[in-house]
Parts: sequence; structure tokens; C-alpha cells
Amino acid sequence: MTVSLRPSGRTPAQLRDIRIERGYTRHAEGSVLISFGDTRVLCTASVDNKVPGFLRGKGEGWITAEYGMLPRATNTRNDREASRGKQGGRTLEIQRLIGRALRACVDRRALGERTITLDCDVLQADGGTRCAAITGAYVALCDATAWLKKRGDIGRDPVVGAVAAVSVGLWQGVPVLDLDYREDSACDTDMNVVMNDGGGFIEIQGTAEGHAFRRDELDRLLELAGQGCNELIALQRAALAQP
Amino acid sequence: MTVSLRPSGRTPAQLRDIRIERGYTRHAEGSVLISFGDTRVLCTASVDNKVPGFLRGKGEGWITAEYGMLPRATNTRNDREASRGKQGGRTLEIQRLIGRALRACVDRRALGERTITLDCDVLQADGGTRCAAITGAYVALCDATAWLKKRGDIGRDPVVGAVAAVSVGLWQGVPVLDLDYREDSACDTDMNVVMNDGGGFIEIQGTAEGHAFRRDELDRLLELAGQGCNELIALQRAALAQP
Amino acid sequence: MTVSLRPSGRTPAQLRDIRIERGYTRHAEGSVLISFGDTRVLCTASVDNKVPGFLRGKGEGWITAEYGMLPRATNTRNDREASRGKQGGRTLEIQRLIGRALRACVDRRALGERTITLDCDVLQADGGTRCAAITGAYVALCDATAWLKKRGDIGRDPVVGAVAAVSVGLWQGVPVLDLDYREDSACDTDMNVVMNDGGGFIEIQGTAEGHAFRRDELDRLLELAGQGCNELIALQRAALAQP
Amino acid sequence: MTVSLRPSGRTPAQLRDIRIERGYTRHAEGSVLISFGDTRVLCTASVDNKVPGFLRGKGEGWITAEYGMLPRATNTRNDREASRGKQGGRTLEIQRLIGRALRACVDRRALGERTITLDCDVLQADGGTRCAAITGAYVALCDATAWLKKRGDIGRDPVVGAVAAVSVGLWQGVPVLDLDYREDSACDTDMNVVMNDGGGFIEIQGTAEGHAFRRDELDRLLELAGQGCNELIALQRAALAQP
Amino acid sequence: MTVSLRPSGRTPAQLRDIRIERGYTRHAEGSVLISFGDTRVLCTASVDNKVPGFLRGKGEGWITAEYGMLPRATNTRNDREASRGKQGGRTLEIQRLIGRALRACVDRRALGERTITLDCDVLQADGGTRCAAITGAYVALCDATAWLKKRGDIGRDPVVGAVAAVSVGLWQGVPVLDLDYREDSACDTDMNVVMNDGGGFIEIQGTAEGHAFRRDELDRLLELAGQGCNELIALQRAALAQP
Amino acid sequence: MTVSLRPSGRTPAQLRDIRIERGYTRHAEGSVLISFGDTRVLCTASVDNKVPGFLRGKGEGWITAEYGMLPRATNTRNDREASRGKQGGRTLEIQRLIGRALRACVDRRALGERTITLDCDVLQADGGTRCAAITGAYVALCDATAWLKKRGDIGRDPVVGAVAAVSVGLWQGVPVLDLDYREDSACDTDMNVVMNDGGGFIEIQGTAEGHAFRRDELDRLLELAGQGCNELIALQRAALAQP
Repeated sequence: MTVSLRPSGRTPAQLRDIRIERGYTRHAEGSVLISFGDTRVLCTASVDNKVPGFLRGKGEGWITAEYGMLPRATNTRNDREASRGKQGGRTLEIQRLIGRALRACVDRRALGERTITLDCDVLQADGGTRCAAITGAYVALCDATAWLKKRGDIGRDPVVGAVAAVSVGLWQGVPVLDLDYREDSACDTDMNVVMNDGGGFIEIQGTAEGHAFRRDELDRLLELAGQGCNELIALQRAALAQP
Repeated sequence: MTVSLRPSGRTPAQLRDIRIERGYTRHAEGSVLISFGDTRVLCTASVDNKVPGFLRGKGEGWITAEYGMLPRATNTRNDREASRGKQGGRTLEIQRLIGRALRACVDRRALGERTITLDCDVLQADGGTRCAAITGAYVALCDATAWLKKRGDIGRDPVVGAVAAVSVGLWQGVPVLDLDYREDSACDTDMNVVMNDGGGFIEIQGTAEGHAFRRDELDRLLELAGQGCNELIALQRAALAQP
Repeated sequence: MTVSLRPSGRTPAQLRDIRIERGYTRHAEGSVLISFGDTRVLCTASVDNKVPGFLRGKGEGWITAEYGMLPRATNTRNDREASRGKQGGRTLEIQRLIGRALRACVDRRALGERTITLDCDVLQADGGTRCAAITGAYVALCDATAWLKKRGDIGRDPVVGAVAAVSVGLWQGVPVLDLDYREDSACDTDMNVVMNDGGGFIEIQGTAEGHAFRRDELDRLLELAGQGCNELIALQRAALAQP
Repeated sequence: MTVSLRPSGRTPAQLRDIRIERGYTRHAEGSVLISFGDTRVLCTASVDNKVPGFLRGKGEGWITAEYGMLPRATNTRNDREASRGKQGGRTLEIQRLIGRALRACVDRRALGERTITLDCDVLQADGGTRCAAITGAYVALCDATAWLKKRGDIGRDPVVGAVAAVSVGLWQGVPVLDLDYREDSACDTDMNVVMNDGGGFIEIQGTAEGHAFRRDELDRLLELAGQGCNELIALQRAALAQP
Repeated sequence: MTVSLRPSGRTPAQLRDIRIERGYTRHAEGSVLISFGDTRVLCTASVDNKVPGFLRGKGEGWITAEYGMLPRATNTRNDREASRGKQGGRTLEIQRLIGRALRACVDRRALGERTITLDCDVLQADGGTRCAAITGAYVALCDATAWLKKRGDIGRDPVVGAVAAVSVGLWQGVPVLDLDYREDSACDTDMNVVMNDGGGFIEIQGTAEGHAFRRDELDRLLELAGQGCNELIALQRAALAQP
Repeated sequence: MTVSLRPSGRTPAQLRDIRIERGYTRHAEGSVLISFGDTRVLCTASVDNKVPGFLRGKGEGWITAEYGMLPRATNTRNDREASRGKQGGRTLEIQRLIGRALRACVDRRALGERTITLDCDVLQADGGTRCAAITGAYVALCDATAWLKKRGDIGRDPVVGAVAAVSVGLWQGVPVLDLDYREDSACDTDMNVVMNDGGGFIEIQGTAEGHAFRRDELDRLLELAGQGCNELIALQRAALAQP
């Protein structure tokens, strides 16, 4: 039986306990605390009535993201990026990913010349922070566009479809879903997959520093990811259905 | 009646609702979420078995602090300091203050050659973040030294006495305690006061950009601060008394 | 006929003209100018008898990469990163990718405590610079390890297997191989694929800012990538076979 | 007798030899070399016909300050901040203090949309540099506004009242005025006090890293500071009375 | 016989093999690969229809330069300036020199409100990179202004006269022309001389860290430089005469 | 008569009023305020018992220099380099020049493994700051080595010979010595010349952004510089002869 394989005790296709808490802080137009097990990310959506220079006067909006990790979100303390004086490559890579993922579900014309910034700050890390960030940021984004619509600033909702993300990997040869930190560290191969509610792939980032994965392994990982994203999108919907 | 004066509806000498939640995140040796009303600061204490260069080989430890604010902790979004590439003057000033305040209650010889870093990250801001940070960091520090003691790494507790901080100001001529953001913005004069459990002053920072305060006003503000710090120290004790 | 579809006049599965010129500059242990059509990247491999701190004393080597683009490698001039004072997110992302890709084909124990740095500098850009960089850096790396072996510094060759990379995308619904800049700009979806000579996937980075790709499209893209990498690996071998 | 207590040989309430030399350099609208004993600070006031963005179009002026220390102003050489690439926390803290202090004595409407920048550069340090800077910057500011008035650029003088600053501390339990470096290093507790010519407190910054000060000690320190600031304001007046 | 003196086997007054290859890359308005023996510098000229702030509205253009060296252009790898986060003093010094040199041969009114940026990137270094850069950048500049003229953007050619540069030094007491790296390292004294086609000196930079040079030595070095620049200008002309 | 030509009223070969004030500040091992007319530069020499990494263990010392300008040393205020976060190209160029110039008169073996840092800070600028800095730094350096010798830290004096610097230029076709700011701004051509007391040239930096200078003009400028440096070296000697 494969169940016993995972350090977390989960079955291969089992997500961690997912919680989505809307309205976590009060200032932002959207504010969501999302938990993928012990991974906790605060996602806020901030509306600004300006767009970056390259979009000025084009009648389109912009979605961008920033990512950060509190110094002691992890097991050993990391230097604060603000104090080191720059964001590291990993941070930049993740926030570019979050921005692209969320832009994929927005009709930027419907948003008008506005920027929505999604700040994803990891309060506690246990693997999969970028996937949790994307999944939570989507909910914060929905709250922000609903706020715009309620004020009458925009007509139709610029959010078209849903977006969620999950990691998959090969644990001792077995494809498993939603890796926590211990699992991630022990996997040769892992992949972050961003999908929409039509089952389309928004982004695939697969990395094999150890064992290069074969085509059939890849196929099974993608299947698992599809299933995980479906579940996450259902949970997003349930969260958004609440008042 | 003066009660009606304060926008918050509080009486002049009334603290906001103070909550201290220990163990808020799981990785840090001490992890406290402190709330002064809507101001919420996550304070973690991280133990490192090294000291800065200037202390190496002297048998003493070090206490230092870093302060940050999530971009949307405030009413309008602030640029992320990590992305701007440097910490602003206000941030540096506050984290230097937190460090000094906490060092004032530690016997650094008893700590041995270790550094405890207090990260104070503001999740939501509504005035008084530096005072909340100091008051919460003290509790996180106690948890971290208790952890060291439990492991047998140190003999006696290096924390000697307690430290708390509160703001006071003149609201339309009336001295008031623990200003929230609306009150702070409307005050000509305000003061942050750090005290210990012996009623001694650790740090006084009073600023009057508008009306310069007179000696008698100063006296009443200091009295109010003393009373506020006493209450806060009692709340710290209560929090630490829980298992 | 599909040939007419591509702006470049190539058939969907046709690589650009690939040239690999070894010994392009004389100081580096490996120095390769690789061209994917008009994309030209200078890849040098530099051997250093040190390893980063986290590897010291472990008997293993390290492979790392840096990526740059000359300011006028592109159609309009880009600011020089050295003069802006930092490397952008795209640069950091690409150089992390190159490093990971090359580490995947190296037995770091066989390298001993040495670092090989692969500098990939784009002299002229026309799409696919990161794929050209990886494919060229592999050849430079082989020259550097051969140099080490010839000097007797190492016993067996640390390079195990070959690594190449190519982009694929959907051009008006048709999967095409090795996009140039014009094609890349017009594609909704594109993917960079790094593979080894065993047909294993080292890295997959697929992005769909416009149309999210379906599973069957993904399957055809991966097939095309496999075919392209095979051809590239054959060209690497041919280049390395020359004296 | 307490006189013998102070390393400087001064009585507890005795200022160091204070010198104020106007017109020290010729380019600035105000240029003052102030000496508090061996502490020498060059304070220049520069008028600019612009205001920062947040004040544009509001009909108000701005007063700001920058502080620096020559690398060898101190006993051992400090790294040059320009070469380290950033101003330290102490520098930022001091220059924010100087700016706030000087703004407290200026009617910014009377200044019109102009900025006066006060550069305070320490040529030689022997304790109390921030107090000397504030006290000297006030004189430079007066010279600059007089220059504006003489040119007919402004009608009434924007400087309303005077501002001076002095340090006080507890030297072996005895409150003493205007600490030099040796005294400052040996004091557990010291306080910088900025006052106006009406005896009002502009800023109080008291720090006790060692012994927390009691309320009665604080009272005596404030008294001493008031007396010191009075003397300094008289010296400022005398300096400004000269042609 | 003096010939035997030079490590390169050249006679004292002999330039290295000089090659000037126009159109080396395809995007820039001017793109020249210049070789002084093994020193190879890619010089591109980029036209921008803007000028820096200090020239706006004055009807004049601007010529500026940036200089870079690929990390492994030299015998041992140098850190990438983009990754260190700043350009070193040597880089800034050289690019300021290149800019001044090229401005000396341009009628900036004839250029109109345009900026031409000359990027000089050293692909391989063997001494004399700044001289090669100036000599090559002149050719790239001519191609860029010819491009402007051909498009009808400007009337008359803003390039007035030619500019070239060469190094001279004292090799074991003998004045020699165009030092390569080995010669340069062994010279006590060397000088970079920029001249125009009228035999006028644009820039002289002579440095003697070891033996201070006497006036008669200086005279002979200047003579040699004049002769070298004449030859280089003839080679520039020949290169520009080709279609 | 040529005298009337110079705005300063000086004859072509006349230096400004030169003053050299030793012991200007008290902490540094050498501290000199040098004035070339209204140009005033504070030069301090700081001894450190360490050398940079590349010299460690070689038994040689190092001489280095840093240059700065107070923000309001000039007619209009310049941004503070510490606050902009980096030293500009001009600053780096000048401090490299000062360092090279002073190293040319030091026997670094006799200094032993020590670094002497020469900080040259311009208090007031009126042209020729780098020449004043070199000339003054030489005197500060002598005071520092004398201090080392007096303490018995070194045996023989590492300073071998003297170094001074002066600017020369063509003012309306007439070669003139020691340009002040007004003259410098109006000169097409100017040159900074560093010489030793044997009449040897240490450094020549001639720049002609306007009119390229002819060989005969160059000859007359060098002669004038030689005469000026002779006078400056005599003044240095006189200053050092005082107790």
C-alpha cells in the first residue's frame, strides 16, 4: 500500500487541510489568509487608480504581485530582504509567477486603468508557499473586484474564470500531490502547476535536479495536478460564496 | 465629561483592548501576536548561537530587533522596503528603539554568546505599532529564554524585570493614553514611553511638531504612561503565566 | 500546407540554423559562441578551485551560471544592469535555470571541490536566448572538464550525459519548434524545455498568459521539444568531436 | 563638592565653551560653524525654490535636514557612508530629529513654496553632535531667511521663536549638562532635549540602556536642560545680533 | 636592436594587428567589432530621440558612453558588475573618458535633440581596451549618424573630424606603442592618448605609479602616440569607405 | 599686457593664495586644511594596522584615498552621495587619482603592513579641488608617518620625495596656472598635473572637450605646471618645517 509512503501520512492524491479566511485584515480591498496545512500566506489585494507607464492611456488595467516571507516563517531565520537591500532571485521569480498566473484570469479592459497589487506574505512556511499564494491571491482579487463593482467603479466583473495552483512530485517513485516541506526536500523531482477552472494549464514549472523525469511520470503528475486544482477551485468557490 | 473627547470613545486613561497570543507561529523559539486594538504585530524571537563581531569572545550575548510593516498593513499601500532596496529612516529608528528597550531587561552575561533577534512585523496598523512591538517582543523574548533554559543551554534566566511601552499625547489639551491612528494624526504632541516593572524609564521619545509642550503637560503625560505600562506589564505576566 | 504559417518560413518542426563555435575567446577554460539563427550567445566556462560556503569540506564541486544581455543585443536599447545597480527578475530567473540545468548532468563528486561558472552573455537576441545559453553552456562545460582532465586535476569526467534546451509554442493553434522573436511575441503560449540525452525532462517551463493550453496541446508540444533536443544534442556531439 | 566629579572639570550645570561663527563658507545662504567644546559642526542652509511632491501647490514651504560625519571626525576612522552605499540608522535618526526640531520654529506659509535644507556636517566629534547641529542650524536658518527677506522674496520672517538643544545625563548619580564624549560613554542614562525660547519642549529623547531613570531624576534632568537651552538661545541671539 | 625588447616581438612603433568589422550585430544603428590584436571590443551606437534633462529644449544633442567587460574577458574571471550591484571606479572612469572623447568630434547642434549612446563591451581583453573602445566607437558613431542622415532625420553630418586613441609606455626605458597586457603589466609608466585627425590632443592620461617620467620621455611618448593615432585614423577611414 | 586677461586679476603664472594649516582637527594622525584661494579641503591621514586582502602577509603597506564634497561646498547644492546611495563617477575618479599620486612617493615596504587612508573633504569649492587635495594630503601623510616614527612603530620614513599637483589651462589662448572655478568654466582645455620634487611627472590628465590642444600649447602648459608644482612643494616644506 502506498499510503504509508508519505511522511505526512496522507494518501498520494490527498491535499493538506486547506483553509481560506477572508477579511483577515481590514484595510485592504481584499485580504485572505490561506493555509495549506502549516503553510500560511496572507494575500492582500490593493486597488490603485493608476497603471504603469507602458499602459497609460490604453484603457487597460494591470495585475501585479509581490511576494515576501517573514524572516522567521521558516525553520531557521532568513535575513530580511529589506535589510539586505534587495529581493533575492527566488522571491523575484515567485512574484513574477504569481502576477502572470493572476493576469491569466482577468479581462484587463473590464478593469479600466487601475492596478491591483497582490501582496503575498508568508507568515509560516511548510512547502508550497507559491501555490498557496496563487490560490489565496485569487480569492483576494475577487474580493477587490467585487468591491470595485459594488462602488460602481466598474461595470462587469473583470475576473473571468478561476485560477489555482498546486505542487506535485515523485516521492520514491510514487506521484504525490501537494508536498509539504519534508516531502519536498526528499523529492528528486517536483512541479508547480497553475490551472484554470476549464482544466487549462496556465503555467507549468517542473524541475528535476536529481532524477530526470520520464514522459510517463510527467503524464501522471499532470493528472494529479489537475485533480488537485479542481479541488482547490471548489474550495475557493465555497469561500467566495460566503457573505 | 472628557470621555466624549476621544474619537475612539475611550476615557483618557483607557488602553485599547490588548490581546497577547503566544505560539502564533510554530518555528520560532518565541512567537507572539499582540493586538493593541486594531494594531496587530507579530513578534518572533529567534535564537542564534553566534554574536556580532564586536562581542566575540567576551562571554556576552546580544539582543537585536528588526521591524517591518506589510505593504497593506495601512490604509493606503506602502511600497515594500525589500523592493525599494532599503529600509527607511522610520523603520531603522523603530528597530533601534526596540533593540535598546529589550536589551534593558536582559543580563547579557547570563545569555552567553548567543543572539536573540526579535522580528516585529506589523500585520495591521492603527497607531502605536512600536509600542505594541516592544510589549509583544518582551513576551516572545521570555518564551525564547525559557526554551533555552528548558534545553539546559543556560542556567539562570537572562531576563531581569519586564519592559512595556505605550504612547501618550495631548488630545485637544487633554492628556490621553494609547493613541490610535485617528487620535495620533490629530495630536500636536505625542510621546512614546518605555518603562520597566520597577517604574523606571527606559526610553522617552516625545515629539511636538505643532504645539511645544509645557513642563506641566509633560508631567501629566508621564504619569499616564506609567499607569499604562503598569497595566501592560500585568497583561504580559498573565499571558506568560499560561502554559 | 503548414509551412506558410511561420513568419520565419520554417516548417513547424524545423530548428533554426544552429552553429556552435568552440574556442571563441581564448582566456576561458571553455568558450563557445552558439547561434540559434540570429540569437547569438557567448558561453564561457571558468574553473575556480573553491566552492561556496555551504559546500566547503564536503568533497563536492559546484556548477553555477550567470546570464547577461548586452544593452543593444535587442531591437531597442535596454539599460545596462550594472549601471542600474541590480539584475532584473528575468535575468535572475534565467541564470538560476541555466545553473540547475547544467548541474543535472554533472557528478559533483567527480568534480572535486571546484566551481565551474558558466557565463552566458547574449551578443544578439532574436528569441530563445535561455535555450541557446543552456545548449551552448553544455559544450563550454565539456571543454572545461576536458581541460581539467588533461591537466590531471581530475580522474574521471564529471559530465554524465548531455543537456540541451529548446522552446516550443502554439502558433495560431499549430505547435511549432524553436521560436524566434517575432513568433514568440505572437504566441499565446510557449514553453522552454530542458532535456537530457536519455529523453528525460530536466526542466519544463510553460507559460500561457493568453490562451491556457489544453492537455492534448501540451502533449504535442512536449513531443516536439523532445525531437528538437535530440537534434541539438547531436549537434553538440558533432561540435565536441572536433579537435 | 560635585565639581570634581566631571572628567571635564566643569560644574554639573556648566556648558562647554560654545562658539558660533557665521559666514564660515561663502556659497550657502546661511553657513555656521558651531563648536560645543571640541565638537565642531558645519551647518549650512540652502534655499531651493521647490518643495517635495506632497506639498506642491499648497502654498507652504519645507524645512529638511541632512547630517553627516567626516570619516575621521572621531577617534577611530569610520567608513564613509557614501562609499558604504547607504546612510546608517543613527544618521537617519539624527537628521530626522534635526528636521523636526527646525520645522517647529518656522511658519511654513510665510516661507512660501521653498525648501530650506540644513546640512549639518560634523568636522570633529566630542559628544553632543546632534545638539550642536540643531543649535547651529537654527542660526544658519535665520541667516537664510534674512537673505530671502533682503532680496524681497518673502514678506515677513518665517522664523517664529528660537530653538536650541542640549544633552543631559546622570554622571555617577549626579545630573550634569552638555556631556562630552568621555562623559557620555560613562553615563548610564542620557537625554537630548530640544526646547524653544518660550521654555516649551520640542523634542525629548531619553535613553537608559543601563540604569532606568526614576521620575525624580528625570525631573532634575529636564530642569538642567531648560537652563542649558536658555543659555544657548542667548548665545544664538548674540551671534545673530552681529552684522 | 630594440625589436627584441618587446615581449610581443613588435618594433617599438608598431601597432598590433588592427581589425575593424562593421555591422557585427544587426539591431544597433552602428555596430563595430574592433580588435587591437587579442583585445576585442564590441562597440554599438544606439540612437534615442531624447536628451538628458539638462539639455531639454536647447536644440542640442548628447553623446554618452557605457563600458563593460564580460566576466571572463580576462585571464581570471572578474565578478559581474551587474551582480555586484555597481559599476567600479575603473569602469566609470573609462566610460566617462569615452564619452568626452567622442563628444569632441561632434557638432551637437547638428545632431538635434537626440542622444547617441556608445556601448563598448570588451569580449576579450589583452591591454588597451579603452583605446580600442574609443577607436571603434568612432566608427559606430559614424554609421549611426549616416543612418540618421539617410533617413532624412538630420541635414548635415554632426561628426566633424575623426578621433582615435592609443596607449604608449616606457618598456625598459624604451618608448613603445600600443601596449598589450604583458607589456602594460611590466611598464612603470603608461599613457593613453586621444587625438583627432588634425593632430590635436583631445585627452592625455599619463600615470606613473613606479618611475616618474621625465619631460624628454614624455615628449617621445607623445610623438609615438601621434604617429599611432594617425595610423588608426587611416584604418577607420578605410573601414568607413567600404559599403 | 596679459595680466588683465584673467578674471581673478592674477598674472598667467601666478598661483592663488595658498595656505596650509596643520593639526586642523585633533583625532587624525595627520590633519591639514589646505586652501588654494577659496578652495578649502580638509585632508586627514588615518593609520590602520591592517592591509587590504591582496597585500596580506607580503610585508608591504598601502596608501588609499577617499574624496568627498560637502553638499553646499559649491554654488548650488549637490545631493549628498551618502543619501543617493553611491559615489559618482567623478568622485571615484578623483579618489583613485589621489591614491595613485600619494603611493608614488611612498616606500611601501618601509611602512610595513599598515594602511594610511587619506580622506579629502572639500569644505568649500572654487576650482582645483583635486589638486588641492593631493597637495594637502601629502602634508597630512608626512604628519602621519612622523607620528608612526615617533612612536617607534617604523624605523625609516616611508615618504620618499614630495608630491604636489596643480591645474593649468588655456584661457583665451594664453596658458594660465591654477584655475579658479570661473576660469575653469571658461577654459576649453585644462590639465591636472601631479609632479614630484625631482621634476618628474606622476600623473598628467589633460582634457579638451572644446578646442583640441596642439603640441606647442601642451608644451607650454607642462612648463607652467612644473613651475607651479615647484612652488607648492616649497610651501609644503615650509609648512612641515614648523613644529
